[in-house]
Amino acid sequence: MNMKIKVNTNFSKLKESYLFSEIGKRERAYRAANPEKKIIKLGIGDVTLPLCEAVTTAMHNAVDEMASKATFRGYAPEYGYDFLRVAIASYYKNKLGVSLSADEIYVSDGAKSDVGNIPDIFGDNTVLIPDPVYPVYLDSNTMAGRRIEFLDGNKENGFLPTPDGLKGEGYIIYICSPNNPTGAVYTREGLKEWIDFAVKSGSLIIFDSAYEAYIKGDYPHSIFELEGARSCAIEISSFSKIAGFTGTRCAWTIIPDELESDGKLIGKLWKRRQATKFNGVPYVVQRGAEAALSDTGLAQVMESVKYYTDNAAVLAKLLSDKGIFYTGGTSSPYVWLECRNSMKSWDFFDFLLETANIVGTPGAGFGSNGEGFFRLSSFGSRESTLEAVERLNKLL
Amino acid sequence: MNMKIKVNTNFSKLKESYLFSEIGKRERAYRAANPEKKIIKLGIGDVTLPLCEAVTTAMHNAVDEMASKATFRGYAPEYGYDFLRVAIASYYKNKLGVSLSADEIYVSDGAKSDVGNIPDIFGDNTVLIPDPVYPVYLDSNTMAGRRIEFLDGNKENGFLPTPDGLKGEGYIIYICSPNNPTGAVYTREGLKEWIDFAVKSGSLIIFDSAYEAYIKGDYPHSIFELEGARSCAIEISSFSKIAGFTGTRCAWTIIPDELESDGKLIGKLWKRRQATKFNGVPYVVQRGAEAALSDTGLAQVMESVKYYTDNAAVLAKLLSDKGIFYTGGTSSPYVWLECRNSMKSWDFFDFLLETANIVGTPGAGFGSNGEGFFRLSSFGSRESTLEAVERLNKLL
Repeated sequence: MNMKIKVNTNFSKLKESYLFSEIGKRERAYRAANPEKKIIKLGIGDVTLPLCEAVTTAMHNAVDEMASKATFRGYAPEYGYDFLRVAIASYYKNKLGVSLSADEIYVSDGAKSDVGNIPDIFGDNTVLIPDPVYPVYLDSNTMAGRRIEFLDGNKENGFLPTPDGLKGEGYIIYICSPNNPTGAVYTREGLKEWIDFAVKSGSLIIFDSAYEAYIKGDYPHSIFELEGARSCAIEISSFSKIAGFTGTRCAWTIIPDELESDGKLIGKLWKRRQATKFNGVPYVVQRGAEAALSDTGLAQVMESVKYYTDNAAVLAKLLSDKGIFYTGGTSSPYVWLECRNSMKSWDFFDFLLETANIVGTPGAGFGSNGEGFFRLSSFGSRESTLEAVERLNKLL
Repeated sequence: MNMKIKVNTNFSKLKESYLFSEIGKRERAYRAANPEKKIIKLGIGDVTLPLCEAVTTAMHNAVDEMASKATFRGYAPEYGYDFLRVAIASYYKNKLGVSLSADEIYVSDGAKSDVGNIPDIFGDNTVLIPDPVYPVYLDSNTMAGRRIEFLDGNKENGFLPTPDGLKGEGYIIYICSPNNPTGAVYTREGLKEWIDFAVKSGSLIIFDSAYEAYIKGDYPHSIFELEGARSCAIEISSFSKIAGFTGTRCAWTIIPDELESDGKLIGKLWKRRQATKFNGVPYVVQRGAEAALSDTGLAQVMESVKYYTDNAAVLAKLLSDKGIFYTGGTSSPYVWLECRNSMKSWDFFDFLLETANIVGTPGAGFGSNGEGFFRLSSFGSRESTLEAVERLNKLL
């Protein structure tokens, strides 16, 4: 006997994501048929290097504190311990030159959670989402039944859509820079165009800077480096890709105190959302995150970031040498390349798997504009990246 | 210049919660005026004893694994590691006599998160919420704009509302047993009435069993001990109160595989919600949680539970001796008592603070039926609980 409650019908509008399960399926099938072949995986979006010593030392110390009645910690503050909010504010001040008050920083268990949950506080707005991009923007807004329009990224604009031609007002605009999956990074001028458009049109920018630590050169790491952002932007970032926290879970969202719409302070709405539906990040994890931003910790975590970006540079150099169009490869752990001979993404996937025994990620999985493109990741080992380059050099 | 985006107008319908800030304010004012008085705090709903040795050993080991490339873990499975889902299933089997498949168990960072997020997957249903009760049921459904009806708990029904008189269909019904704040626990017969009603009316029960470890005697720990529950119930529970995880964050939700409404499997909707908006619980925390459910771990955590329930029994005995009406005090860390001489909750708060220097929690903070009642917590030390009883013995 079934229940008679109504479910959220917006879930029916979600596209099933077969991307990574389909990749796994094809890889397993090939492996079964060709057990002697050595497959190199450049498909993953997950880090592989361990937590740094500063972080694990801090976590051990925090576990010891939790083991003793005198130093035990119960419920954490819903928006993060002050020690961590202050450490993040100092990171912005010292490394990015951005002044923030610690209470504009809301600590959470992940950028994915914040990206997914932030629609809770908004009403019925039109949402602008880049294509291709990280699928959570689209899926979380689809679940909430929002109107969605796509911002086309393509070869012509280097996968960096601009606001040209947009006529409406009051949009919610997602920007991911450095972009996942394309690795494309907005320049100061490019990002300023979006801020100017947002201010003029009364729109809100949700800026995802999860990959900012990978930036090389004079690109903005934080949207708050640019004038005007405090009146139109939220920033979501994470310890996942800077400090290898994908399995440790800590992130933050920045909401300027004065950010307001509809007569309501956005920060106050988020506070209420988080205090109602979230109960803070583990103390042990927050101490680890704090340590990652210490001078010692930062030096250690940036060694891992360098390891990955050096891998990316090796992949990028090959593509440059071959004259293949790509974005990313610098300022990003990803290299986003055009498939050979106008092949479709999945055909190129099969081609690479079968002829070079390399597993990558078909660009079509990140939006319709990803068709004909392909993502390689630098999160593998140096050795396997070099071997992949050797194989690709012969093939392409 | 303000933005022109629409915010979620349901947030305006939320009552501001002044409960704990008002308690703090009155306590600080009294303390400032009477610095020589020794105040005993029996107001908190947070644990105070440290994590047990089995848990901290497991967490140390897991931190070491995260420090080495060979054993490092990246993104965790979104619904929890198999080792933890299997450990929870074994706990249900061995301790509660309930058979579950491990993949009916969804691990998360907190019961508050699950309680708050589960409305995401439902449509426009009428929600039945006990009064008094934990405020998150009300607030999260208010944010989602749901119709809400209250189930009256009162002295007559021992703060255990029944379905008598309900005529509708397709309700979402929240049940918290043992209840926070009243400590009242449903008997098998009482809970079966709700299951029978839910089955008959096509309703869904969301059963919050966060305090099940405190139960003494033959009360149901899990709704799935009772026949019929698999066709009408979800259960949400947590490591917070059994293993002192309030600052460590781990919980689980059980959705029977076959649970279905509107032609949709509820478990499948929750999977999609979690895979989109959540990225798993820290590996280190999941290893700690697993250890809490080992034989050694359970023996250790139940010592702390016994410490708290022994405190509660001391408070309950005093009230029994004095002939004061109360619920809880056994099978719960809370004692819920009627205020003296028909005083209102906040008047009784001031009376206890001023005459006995005891801080408790006014029942009115948990719903309108809480007016005239008061919550004392057993999460303090044995010494302070005994001293509180001595002071109350003279006073009441």
